[in-house]
Amino acid sequence: MLSGGPSPTGGVNRGPARADVAVVGAGPVGLAVAWRCAQRGLRVVVHDPAPGSGASHVAAGMLAPVAEAYFGERKLTGLLAESAARWPGFAAELAEAAGAEFGYRTDGTLVVGLTADDLAEAGRLWTYQQGLGLPITPLRPSELRDREPALAPRVRGGAVAPGDHQVDPRRLVTALRAAAERAGAVWRPGAVGDLSQVDARVTVVAAGCGAAALTGLPVRPVKGQVLRLRAPGPGAPDFRHVIRGYADGESVYLVPRDSGEVVVGATVEERADTEVTGGAVLRLLRAAVDLVPGLAEYELVETSAGLRPGTPDNAPILGALPGRPGVLAATGHHRHGIVLTPVTADLVTELIVTGEPDPLLAPFTPDRFAGAASPATVGRGRPASASEEETCN
Amino acid sequence: MLSGGPSPTGGVNRGPARADVAVVGAGPVGLAVAWRCAQRGLRVVVHDPAPGSGASHVAAGMLAPVAEAYFGERKLTGLLAESAARWPGFAAELAEAAGAEFGYRTDGTLVVGLTADDLAEAGRLWTYQQGLGLPITPLRPSELRDREPALAPRVRGGAVAPGDHQVDPRRLVTALRAAAERAGAVWRPGAVGDLSQVDARVTVVAAGCGAAALTGLPVRPVKGQVLRLRAPGPGAPDFRHVIRGYADGESVYLVPRDSGEVVVGATVEERADTEVTGGAVLRLLRAAVDLVPGLAEYELVETSAGLRPGTPDNAPILGALPGRPGVLAATGHHRHGIVLTPVTADLVTELIVTGEPDPLLAPFTPDRFAGAASPATVGRGRPASASEEETCN
Repeated sequence: MLSGGPSPTGGVNRGPARADVAVVGAGPVGLAVAWRCAQRGLRVVVHDPAPGSGASHVAAGMLAPVAEAYFGERKLTGLLAESAARWPGFAAELAEAAGAEFGYRTDGTLVVGLTADDLAEAGRLWTYQQGLGLPITPLRPSELRDREPALAPRVRGGAVAPGDHQVDPRRLVTALRAAAERAGAVWRPGAVGDLSQVDARVTVVAAGCGAAALTGLPVRPVKGQVLRLRAPGPGAPDFRHVIRGYADGESVYLVPRDSGEVVVGATVEERADTEVTGGAVLRLLRAAVDLVPGLAEYELVETSAGLRPGTPDNAPILGALPGRPGVLAATGHHRHGIVLTPVTADLVTELIVTGEPDPLLAPFTPDRFAGAASPATVGRGRPASASEEETCN
Repeated sequence: MLSGGPSPTGGVNRGPARADVAVVGAGPVGLAVAWRCAQRGLRVVVHDPAPGSGASHVAAGMLAPVAEAYFGERKLTGLLAESAARWPGFAAELAEAAGAEFGYRTDGTLVVGLTADDLAEAGRLWTYQQGLGLPITPLRPSELRDREPALAPRVRGGAVAPGDHQVDPRRLVTALRAAAERAGAVWRPGAVGDLSQVDARVTVVAAGCGAAALTGLPVRPVKGQVLRLRAPGPGAPDFRHVIRGYADGESVYLVPRDSGEVVVGATVEERADTEVTGGAVLRLLRAAVDLVPGLAEYELVETSAGLRPGTPDNAPILGALPGRPGVLAATGHHRHGIVLTPVTADLVTELIVTGEPDPLLAPFTPDRFAGAASPATVGRGRPASASEEETCN
């Protein structure tokens, strides 16, 4: 499908008007693809009326291939691990290219359970993760508190995933824009309502859940509500690890930033609105304060909601669209867009340059949803047809 | 002290430059004083850099002389009842004068207790209120739910105070500004740092907790945090009464507006900052949702904090300042500024016009705090000296 594609060396064969690569969507995935392609000498145009205003603006930025490895998602877990392994090099290269940091931190993640029931749930999952050979180690309560004295005394137990890191997605977008622009990519602020408006040899649809309307792919919005707290005074929060907690049946994460910010997330709701509701804020705050009581005295500085691009199997959609020559998908990253950014950018760029898909892409190609128009083929009790009236704001 | 005061008829004796009355502070109290004085033909100037930006901007606007009648505050309770009795006439006259409504509603207030302990606490208070002859009637749980089906089934009981009403303080400020201006009062946007900057025969200090710095009165900031929710869809909230609830030891009120808004308040904190904290939002939301579960699906549209002007005995400070000829105080309204607006405006205006204090003012004169510099004379375990470093933002 990439026959007639651009010369990987760029330059001599370029016409003045037509781009080699058009990226639709300037979130982390789209910008990273643009950066990588521009690094390869391709002429890149990025279309987005408001870069970084989608799911990444709300995201916490956990790079957690271990703590986010769930039952029944083996192939996705492999891709998460692959991308997490690329993060250190990606981060170093990006910081250099952008001339800016973006909150990349490697303090590790603590998984904790508030009650005995919560601990049983968390433990069932980390036993599974250990069985996959992933680096996660149970800790005694005293060991947990040695690492993070801010944890509530009633926390029953937990584990540490030292390789689960974090980044600040808003700063990541800023850095990726700078790097992409320095490498020669051009930003076009107009909205793309139809791919026929895009003139390029290859079009990469990285529009989050907006990809549904553009491509017909079964990408649906999955609402997530998130809070941002700020530590009192000028200092950083009084804990360093990302805390992935289970608290009275509520799953919550707490991501501390050097700036003093703590991101508390997130709901997972099958809705397409971005309203912040009293009930969600209550659930998030209750779980957060139960796990780290000192958060009660933090300032509540932001409440927000975003729409993740969900897919029927919770895995991203990466690769050539059947029957749409020159159109690639890089969407459907659901809860994993930030961690999957490096591998997505690498694999999509390689596909554009060489015309050959990396074997890593095989489980994630768009054609796996060829029958997706039928509700019977998708999970979660709802149709995944792209013709649904949900919109991705 | 009002010798040399203005002619009540205004006009012939006026100089071109000097006002009869300067009001410092354009909250509801200051604006109502300005309106009433201007109605009497006085030349009125109102000083405030940001009218309506103080405690009233955060206030819920309960007009609740009964449900807010507490042990040990008999004289304050009398003033609350007196002012509440003036509210219907005040509201009608203001709506006419301003040409605008301001959310005045007479649906009454339900006092409810979530648990048996909460009900016991609420019941102890309404028994006291009944003993004062105030109109409050206990209801069976079934009667409560007949009146408000939105109440949680586990609410153990309550009472109705049919004469406890509500108004929207933000709209009230808008209406009072319009009425005062139509009556001839003039607004000066400069901040008043010292009363010597004010040139008028009579100066009324209605600056909320800013009065401490201007007058030396023992007015301290008492922080209150408040949430604003909005009903889903275009309609009004699914309850009509103001709900004054006790929920697992937390005291909370829920004030429904025709616009769909529900105000949830309020913390009472001996602090002078206006940060919104995670713990306060959690406590307010938990109590609100426990009492009216449907609020979980309401949108959280605003979180805010204001500073009430508190006094050592929780009652306002109304009248002439000892040793400061021509200076009157109309401040210290603490949690009762909105309900006390009509009586404050009437009594202060009458004092300015006649030079004679109404007997109703006797318990509330500034000279009752002549010994306030001594911590032993004030309650709540803290000094009430105006020299404290707290500020009123």
